[in-house]
Amino acid sequence: MNYIALRDEPRPGDGAAIRHLVETAGVFSPAETAIACELIEERLARGLAATGYHFLFAEEERRQPQGFACFGPIPLTRASWDLYWIAVDPQRRGRGIGRRLMAEVERQAAAGGATALFIDTSGRADYGTARAFYASLGYRIAAEFADFYAPGDSKVVFRKTL
Amino acid sequence: MNYIALRDEPRPGDGAAIRHLVETAGVFSPAETAIACELIEERLARGLAATGYHFLFAEEERRQPQGFACFGPIPLTRASWDLYWIAVDPQRRGRGIGRRLMAEVERQAAAGGATALFIDTSGRADYGTARAFYASLGYRIAAEFADFYAPGDSKVVFRKTL
Repeated sequence: MNYIALRDEPRPGDGAAIRHLVETAGVFSPAETAIACELIEERLARGLAATGYHFLFAEEERRQPQGFACFGPIPLTRASWDLYWIAVDPQRRGRGIGRRLMAEVERQAAAGGATALFIDTSGRADYGTARAFYASLGYRIAAEFADFYAPGDSKVVFRKTL
Repeated sequence: MNYIALRDEPRPGDGAAIRHLVETAGVFSPAETAIACELIEERLARGLAATGYHFLFAEEERRQPQGFACFGPIPLTRASWDLYWIAVDPQRRGRGIGRRLMAEVERQAAAGGATALFIDTSGRADYGTARAFYASLGYRIAAEFADFYAPGDSKVVFRKTL
């Protein structure tokens, strides 16, 4: 494996990279993909201070990002942050890219004043790998809302004290 | 008491009315007031379809609104809606204005396809009247996140099946 670096300064081409990563993840709807693309376009247009959207990209030099994460402070809270997105190229999984992204998300959030990080995800079977991933990193289920996204599709809220 | 009607078409002057209602409610921070004002400005600028922000104003003819509510569908959900704001002029409380607003919120949400309405509020002592109000209308606590807004200030999520 070549050396993979984390970059936190978005570039104009990142919109296409994020679209590709979210689409190939296999679990996100077109509406969800559209929102992921909106976040990076907003960030590129208006900057970090105005949006609060932090991004991290995992990439080898001069290659397309193999994973990304998006996170930031929850408005109107003193020190609660949210992970909005994380996705890793399915062909690059099992190499610790997701764990490296999460470790840096937590480091930057804590440096920004976060005392807790929240992750909303789905209770659907096809999100089982994602839920196990968060649990393995010390996240605990703080709440579950039955039928939140759709009948039979609950919202699961994970939380970790930083 | 004069006859109070509910109006759901926002007007340009509603921004000032909402600012007044939210400021005099006594529990909202300046940052929260700013967000309430942003929602009505967004709605006036971009319309209902683009924003998803529904508004209701309780008012006597040719008078300033005595209360308002803001609600809408939660993005990426099939049939979950959120009450974003409700406020009634402190000098007009005890007249059933809040209940009338909530009844119409629920009617319009159900007509728009909602099967559940969610309300995020604070666990702080000064929100006790608000929490008792929601409970009296059949809302049940679906989750509570300790220290969410600030140390000692939890987020309480109410839910009602429509």
